[in-house]
Amino acid sequence: MNAPVPTHVLPAFDKRAVPAAMLAALQQRFGERCSSAAAVREQHGRDESPFPVTPPELVVFCDSNDDVAAVLKLAAEHAVPVIPYGTGSSLEGHLLAVQGGISVDVSGMTRIVRLNPEDLTVTVQAGVTREQLNREIKDSGLFFPIDPGANASLGGMAATRASGTNAVRYGTMRENVLGLTVVTAAGEVIRTGTRARKSSAGYDLTRLFVGSEGTLGVITEVTLKLYPLPEAVSAAICHFADVRSAVDATIQIIQMGVPIARCELLDRNAVRFINAQSKLGLRESPMLLMEFHGSEAGVKEQAETVQAITADLGGEAFEWASTPEERTRLWTARHKAYFAGMTQNPGCRTVTTDTCVPISRLAEIIDASVAEVDASGLPYYIVGHVGDGNFHLAYLVKDGDAAQRALAEGMSQRMVQRAIALEGTCTGEHGVGLHKMDFLVEEAGTGAVEMMRQVKRALDPKNIMNPGKIFTL
Amino acid sequence: MNAPVPTHVLPAFDKRAVPAAMLAALQQRFGERCSSAAAVREQHGRDESPFPVTPPELVVFCDSNDDVAAVLKLAAEHAVPVIPYGTGSSLEGHLLAVQGGISVDVSGMTRIVRLNPEDLTVTVQAGVTREQLNREIKDSGLFFPIDPGANASLGGMAATRASGTNAVRYGTMRENVLGLTVVTAAGEVIRTGTRARKSSAGYDLTRLFVGSEGTLGVITEVTLKLYPLPEAVSAAICHFADVRSAVDATIQIIQMGVPIARCELLDRNAVRFINAQSKLGLRESPMLLMEFHGSEAGVKEQAETVQAITADLGGEAFEWASTPEERTRLWTARHKAYFAGMTQNPGCRTVTTDTCVPISRLAEIIDASVAEVDASGLPYYIVGHVGDGNFHLAYLVKDGDAAQRALAEGMSQRMVQRAIALEGTCTGEHGVGLHKMDFLVEEAGTGAVEMMRQVKRALDPKNIMNPGKIFTL
Repeated sequence: MNAPVPTHVLPAFDKRAVPAAMLAALQQRFGERCSSAAAVREQHGRDESPFPVTPPELVVFCDSNDDVAAVLKLAAEHAVPVIPYGTGSSLEGHLLAVQGGISVDVSGMTRIVRLNPEDLTVTVQAGVTREQLNREIKDSGLFFPIDPGANASLGGMAATRASGTNAVRYGTMRENVLGLTVVTAAGEVIRTGTRARKSSAGYDLTRLFVGSEGTLGVITEVTLKLYPLPEAVSAAICHFADVRSAVDATIQIIQMGVPIARCELLDRNAVRFINAQSKLGLRESPMLLMEFHGSEAGVKEQAETVQAITADLGGEAFEWASTPEERTRLWTARHKAYFAGMTQNPGCRTVTTDTCVPISRLAEIIDASVAEVDASGLPYYIVGHVGDGNFHLAYLVKDGDAAQRALAEGMSQRMVQRAIALEGTCTGEHGVGLHKMDFLVEEAGTGAVEMMRQVKRALDPKNIMNPGKIFTL
Repeated sequence: MNAPVPTHVLPAFDKRAVPAAMLAALQQRFGERCSSAAAVREQHGRDESPFPVTPPELVVFCDSNDDVAAVLKLAAEHAVPVIPYGTGSSLEGHLLAVQGGISVDVSGMTRIVRLNPEDLTVTVQAGVTREQLNREIKDSGLFFPIDPGANASLGGMAATRASGTNAVRYGTMRENVLGLTVVTAAGEVIRTGTRARKSSAGYDLTRLFVGSEGTLGVITEVTLKLYPLPEAVSAAICHFADVRSAVDATIQIIQMGVPIARCELLDRNAVRFINAQSKLGLRESPMLLMEFHGSEAGVKEQAETVQAITADLGGEAFEWASTPEERTRLWTARHKAYFAGMTQNPGCRTVTTDTCVPISRLAEIIDASVAEVDASGLPYYIVGHVGDGNFHLAYLVKDGDAAQRALAEGMSQRMVQRAIALEGTCTGEHGVGLHKMDFLVEEAGTGAVEMMRQVKRALDPKNIMNPGKIFTL
């Protein structure tokens, strides 16, 4: 990898201004829903990445497919960039208006369009968040399992091919989106997929848009698979002397085919931060936080197998969290690890890695990366969806400290190199955004990235859809 | 749907001839592996569809990525069509050389490139068949579940987004391909995906090629997910008074979240044909053929739940097939249903439907379609992966009888209209090929199909990859 260490200095792009005619047309249609107020622009020009705020010229709040189509038609006509905006929880700079343009905010599109419990499907508008969805469908006896740390919008989760703690059993957005409504770069509304569980009808446009990070069109509706709430759920924690033992236990669990629903690693630092944040009183050593779904008997059987594996590897203090309240408390704390890391390290921002490797190589990459960060002296913590081979090593760097940032970026880069050498990926679930463009080329090769560019040029000939993300044209 | 009834008269395309310079270059590189013998061309110009044989001008037998790249480079230079060929088991006319050109036969690419049992992955060359794969990995304790009726090649299965009887539990090729090696329309070798179980790194080129039916490039290697052989397997059959009751039982099984591994419907005719073919002695009434995978206790629990559901719906003669031999006999007979239908109806060819609908609408579409075919007097049978909402109604038409064929095509068309009205798809697993091009437009809409064309034009600007399939340009 010869690319220079990413510096978090944004690439220098020319900005494309919104012409007066377009501004007038937007103001006429959207009135107060079209805003150029500094605070609104600023809020839409940032996300959870460590990049500096880069506001769009305008923010348009859309309530319908027609609203989005109207903006896109104008944007296509005037060749003005459009950046779809859900909840702003990206970690990779997806939302920054590096070429100027318009933020299309779909967070007001919060309607459950249609719930079909008899088919285990639901169609939602793009602004519905994962928590809202699960709240609204609770009485159906069904749930949607994909849970990135943030309470993200389902449109954004589709756009970044998100996953989370349940993916080891239920898959990611790749496996759980049945179809989409998309507004194309020309402002046309199309539908991809159907409500059938499978199809061989033509190119898989659904999967092309899932993970396209807003660069091919705006996702406005998402049709999802749902799952019956399991008859029995049980969670357990188990502590280990070191990260290596916890990871080895995970590898064995997966290789034995245990249908574990969640298998999360927290290193000692992560436990320490969430203890401090959420008053959990957990023993401060590396731990696995696990969950089992199934029938009463099935859950018992899974848990027994896992308990035997962890005991073999020196797992200690295996504890059940059997009440829903206790489980919720543990998982809520886990989901807040990112914010706990920052709260417990005031003045720091997070540089998060997101590598994912074949499960057998997981211990190797974690060991090497921990050795390096331990030697560096930077504060950090590790949380990981280790059942998938995916983990996040979060470096905490003082905001504005260029040396610390370069140090973290260098370690991140070397971790990605390790992941690629081990036949893994630079990003398991966060996406490429602005941050991993060089890594993508290293991972996929110039030929494959050039093919992505060909697709992009074909579907967005004026390069108006979230330009400057994933790759440069 | 205003399109005329498909007539099985091939669309009239201009053929593109192989220029002398290209022929010479191929003969020099491939020697006897480049054939223009009539028998070889004829074999490569047909499949299991009812279309007339349409041979390519040449057949080139490729043994490596480099071989395929060499053909593609020449084909790109001379703008000559290329049709990838695996085992010839397509049901939709994928292999017919409607615009002439070269059949690139990868059936000799039968190497297991790398088995990684510790990661539950394997990489195979495109010509490896599903049966070969499972034979060769047997000792690893793992298996690959996707099983279309034919012993298809894994390259072909990826290209048509195939599934089969296990998809209800394990997913289709869409969910089980981790990565591909592809030779592009320019003759470049690229790799998509990694061996990690998930990734958010750029556009999902893997899923773009899965289901692209040879129209975007040649798949030469496939990296697949494998699964641990279940600790316990048990199969059962259950008979019903009518198809409706069998389907209602299936709907309940799925809605209750039973992790059934296989749930196949056979109507009375299908049972009759496979009885005659395979001497099974099954009671000749509609039946479900089911399989359960899991731990001993898990399988028992699943089976008890299903037995209770089927009993409620008048299921009779619930019988276990507990020995592996008995199970193999039943499933082999099921997989041979297509050939049994033709053997038991000499002189007939099969017009197979492949609709897939949301599970709750399955009884409705089967009822309407059965009423129509019963009234028509044509012989037929139904087999179905009903756990997915997918079934095949196979019309048996006298070879060369235009009236019968038009009758079958008309009924097929109306069934597709029903499926689309019920938010389903015209093809669950066979692909579009030559046969379902009008249906694709009806299902996906002109906007989505135009987007597919944009992708095609971008990746294959000279339209050399399996031209005339999925859509016309």
